[in-house]
Amino acid sequence: MQLNVIKIGGNVIDDAEKLAGFLGRFSQLPGKNILVHGGGKIATQMAKELGIESKMVEGRRITDAPMRDVVTMVYGGLVNKRIVARLQSLGCNAIGLTGADGASVLSHKRPVKAIDYGFVGDVEKVNAPFIALLLENGLTPVFAPLTMDVQGDILNTNADTQASEIARALSGTGAVNLVYCFEKKGVLKDANDNTTLIPRLIPETYEKYKSGGIIYDGMIPKLDNAFAAVQAGVRKVIICEANDIAEAVEGAAGTTIEL
Amino acid sequence: MQLNVIKIGGNVIDDAEKLAGFLGRFSQLPGKNILVHGGGKIATQMAKELGIESKMVEGRRITDAPMRDVVTMVYGGLVNKRIVARLQSLGCNAIGLTGADGASVLSHKRPVKAIDYGFVGDVEKVNAPFIALLLENGLTPVFAPLTMDVQGDILNTNADTQASEIARALSGTGAVNLVYCFEKKGVLKDANDNTTLIPRLIPETYEKYKSGGIIYDGMIPKLDNAFAAVQAGVRKVIICEANDIAEAVEGAAGTTIEL
Repeated sequence: MQLNVIKIGGNVIDDAEKLAGFLGRFSQLPGKNILVHGGGKIATQMAKELGIESKMVEGRRITDAPMRDVVTMVYGGLVNKRIVARLQSLGCNAIGLTGADGASVLSHKRPVKAIDYGFVGDVEKVNAPFIALLLENGLTPVFAPLTMDVQGDILNTNADTQASEIARALSGTGAVNLVYCFEKKGVLKDANDNTTLIPRLIPETYEKYKSGGIIYDGMIPKLDNAFAAVQAGVRKVIICEANDIAEAVEGAAGTTIEL
Repeated sequence: MQLNVIKIGGNVIDDAEKLAGFLGRFSQLPGKNILVHGGGKIATQMAKELGIESKMVEGRRITDAPMRDVVTMVYGGLVNKRIVARLQSLGCNAIGLTGADGASVLSHKRPVKAIDYGFVGDVEKVNAPFIALLLENGLTPVFAPLTMDVQGDILNTNADTQASEIARALSGTGAVNLVYCFEKKGVLKDANDNTTLIPRLIPETYEKYKSGGIIYDGMIPKLDNAFAAVQAGVRKVIICEANDIAEAVEGAAGTTIEL
């Protein structure tokens, strides 16, 4: 089985036109596909309207009990079902899931250290046979960034990590590409110039770009995670713009990270 | 395959303790089971907090675009995922679905006649093979009262009807019981006295009770629908209190409606 696990973030979800364009392209991808979506700004806006304060620490949401209800509603209900319904209307047999559904992605509540993130989950176990069953029956799983612990608590989960863990777990069943859709064309030599795309990164060239100061800052943890995924069995990680998804899964756009 | 399709309404969903008790009992039912839940008052309350007016005509919600977003969030996200996560923690392999997921329940937007109900769907087609696939693989589908039309519009749908349509569609695959959980012990001769339960209704006794004025008003459309379901192939319809679910599926509580 060849499979693409594709993650889209807030920049696509928050822009109705961009999202519609992306879903049109996604629905026409060949082979088997899984979509993992982030949250976007709708949860923050919804919380505000409901008089619930959004607390962020180091770019991560602190998920207290009222905020957990908001993300469960918005990510698991509004965003997820809108995407599923749109894909269905495009002829793609989508099924929306949180990690609770079919116990597909189990996590544990992040231990409290310097920061108490609240109801935030770190992925522990992906139910690969269940996800494979859906794929084998022609379904396209669409995951909201929500998981569940063994107590049955819904936990807010980073969509990048969730996509990576799903891709790793399914890599036992065949070739899996993990695709991160992103604001830029891929990994760039000059972050402000899309024409400076690095089409392919292997460990040796990655080290060279890092030591040369060409890849730095926020891209380093992202790429470290990408290399960790390929080391764990994912065939390729692809970082690309949402618009280029069709070309990117063919290796003709974006940056391909492999061993 | 023996299957129970069980519907719970707002009176169970809005009462945390009652819901927890019900889900504990539901998780221990033998055989294959499907849960269909109604909406409850959370959507109305959420809409109010968001400054969206709830319009009701003849007990049915008028679902304009902002209200459709609210019910998608609340029914498809908050209520559905809470139930799924709780069932999972009880060892029941639940999967939350709207009619959009796997195109499981397709509907059409109710035509505008005297009243424009807005984004309200009348069920057209249940994807029985998909639901059967989940059941055969040990999953317990949990449906929110939301369906989808061919344009990919999410439509608010009456949970009683959705449960009935699912039960009818699956009756081709084996014996199906359709169970309505209700505030009372079942159909009563005296609506205020739970000891006056009618344990069994067949068409002849139903006619007798109707002509005798013992069954009247709101129970008549409910029972007409129940008899229509058994005529369409459902083995039994059972009307019972949520507390009595375990006994009711064995025919030892509630009112059993059959031919």
